[in-house]
Amino acid sequence: MLRLNETIETIEPLDNEAMRLTQRRLDSLTKPQGSLGRLEEVAVRIAGITGKYIPDVPKKLSVLMAADHGVVVEGVSAFPQDVTMEMVENFIKGGAAMNVLSKHVGSDLWVVDIGVKGDISGKKGIIHKKIANGTSNMAKGQAMTRDEAIRAIEVGISMVVQAKDQGYGLIGTGEMGIGNTTASTAIVCAFSGLPPSEVVGRGTGVDDEGMKRKIETIEKALDVNRPDPNDPLDVLSKVGGLEIAGLAGVFLGCAAMRIPVLIDGFISGAAALVAYKLKPLAGEYMIASHLSMERGHRIELDMMGLKPLLDLDMRLGEGTGAALAMGIVDASIKIIREMATFEEAGVSEKE
Amino acid sequence: MLRLNETIETIEPLDNEAMRLTQRRLDSLTKPQGSLGRLEEVAVRIAGITGKYIPDVPKKLSVLMAADHGVVVEGVSAFPQDVTMEMVENFIKGGAAMNVLSKHVGSDLWVVDIGVKGDISGKKGIIHKKIANGTSNMAKGQAMTRDEAIRAIEVGISMVVQAKDQGYGLIGTGEMGIGNTTASTAIVCAFSGLPPSEVVGRGTGVDDEGMKRKIETIEKALDVNRPDPNDPLDVLSKVGGLEIAGLAGVFLGCAAMRIPVLIDGFISGAAALVAYKLKPLAGEYMIASHLSMERGHRIELDMMGLKPLLDLDMRLGEGTGAALAMGIVDASIKIIREMATFEEAGVSEKE
Repeated sequence: MLRLNETIETIEPLDNEAMRLTQRRLDSLTKPQGSLGRLEEVAVRIAGITGKYIPDVPKKLSVLMAADHGVVVEGVSAFPQDVTMEMVENFIKGGAAMNVLSKHVGSDLWVVDIGVKGDISGKKGIIHKKIANGTSNMAKGQAMTRDEAIRAIEVGISMVVQAKDQGYGLIGTGEMGIGNTTASTAIVCAFSGLPPSEVVGRGTGVDDEGMKRKIETIEKALDVNRPDPNDPLDVLSKVGGLEIAGLAGVFLGCAAMRIPVLIDGFISGAAALVAYKLKPLAGEYMIASHLSMERGHRIELDMMGLKPLLDLDMRLGEGTGAALAMGIVDASIKIIREMATFEEAGVSEKE
Repeated sequence: MLRLNETIETIEPLDNEAMRLTQRRLDSLTKPQGSLGRLEEVAVRIAGITGKYIPDVPKKLSVLMAADHGVVVEGVSAFPQDVTMEMVENFIKGGAAMNVLSKHVGSDLWVVDIGVKGDISGKKGIIHKKIANGTSNMAKGQAMTRDEAIRAIEVGISMVVQAKDQGYGLIGTGEMGIGNTTASTAIVCAFSGLPPSEVVGRGTGVDDEGMKRKIETIEKALDVNRPDPNDPLDVLSKVGGLEIAGLAGVFLGCAAMRIPVLIDGFISGAAALVAYKLKPLAGEYMIASHLSMERGHRIELDMMGLKPLLDLDMRLGEGTGAALAMGIVDASIKIIREMATFEEAGVSEKE
């Protein structure tokens, strides 16, 4: 199950019987019915995904894909392109926000070079899966070939295969790539038909002048490439990114292998949207971790009918929102595993 | 600092210099400025409370106060009064949602009998501080005497003194008491002037008939008692509860002893509001953990100018929302403690 088509064909609906049994158990626990709100909803979803009505507390993994974007030459980012590689170093050394938060929730972290510009093949602590030295400038032509997009997706799928082999039961998605809010905005515009001015945000913090350039650049990329919204691989290869393709593979792989997967912010959401467009059923395996300040994120989640768990005004990416939400997912599973029923506890039920 | 007046007088403003230094450090870390949103806001607040610009990761404690309410004879709850005591048993045995969630976030849990109806003085695993066998029926007269209210507040203060002695650095508030959403609604109505029909919620889940009775009972209690909104102890003693008084003491004690304290849901919020009315500065030491489904909760938080961290459609109480938010508070502190600066990591700054 390492190939894209095979993976897509493997994806099946959630296990309704497991969900029904989980709901029944939740209703028997010593609390007013439904009073744990979205924790109960998450527990039921995890049961449907895993097929276990009392799910295991999962071994957790965050997969962080890093890649560069040719479009940065248009001046769409507040940070220089070198920051992608410098931040990869920072992840290896453990100094980034994602290191702190994944450690905080007990998640392992895999950093994948799927398209960083420059040779870092000698570096330890990275999973080396480079498809290309960044994408080409999408304002001038397509960002990558269709074949590169498929290979990048299959890297993501292969990460999930390895994760499953190693016993991981919950996967978070993260990314690093200067310029990737520009690519994500173009993807959302391509699928939704919305103009860039209604989707774009400030990313890492461009000023008004930079915002204007960013909008014009995305308009140009859409105009030059004319991505076909009915062909998700066309959208992805023309205006996407290698880390976005890789994460789309993670979402598809998780759906195929029945592992719950957390969407992080706007870029991770663009990858989720590509996966969802390739196979709408994949959306049932996704949990929206948080709502990013980057306004296009809400558009993505609405398109997939997902509601975020957290809303903490975050806009960092890297998988930080997904990591924080892992603590909530764990809590929901522990509720179903560890709470006493009314009968066990000898507590009187509702009159 | 065990007496109410003395405690109130001890409460001082936050440490602005510590907050300024924390903000400066946050801005030097390897992330776009402000991109961790409310995590950064919480880190700054903790610095202001503790006076340490790089706060320690705190030893965590949840204080759960249990008490009964005479008003339940009016038929305002979906569960029988015995459930208060039965749930105290459940807390001791570890089967309640609060046991699961406090363990999940690494918080200790103190269960305090401050007014459970019936003798449980022989039970182990409880802190015995009973002021009375529940309150009197507030629909007929005042719930407790002013002296009882003050003594219950001072129990809460004494819990914080003990907690500080034992090195706790973050305190969550929780409660158990069949009938306590009725008392909390009456408190909010007394302070805000809003009619019960605009504040009341379904509590543990009363039906439409029960809601009608609940509203009428609160109207009657306010009419019979005429609590004076300018005298918080008058409101508390006439239409409050012993666990609400105890938690008001926890809030005041934390403000006096500079320990960050988490508001849980609607009942904990009513206690916070009493503390805030006694000393508005105490509100600066409070962190609103989540937004309860019980609609009066938002009214309370708005009155204190607080914004909840989580919104997970929960309405269980016990301190469950505060416990979940402890994970977020810890994360915010670890960010400031563990992340690398741009300089340390050799990452290029914004152009």
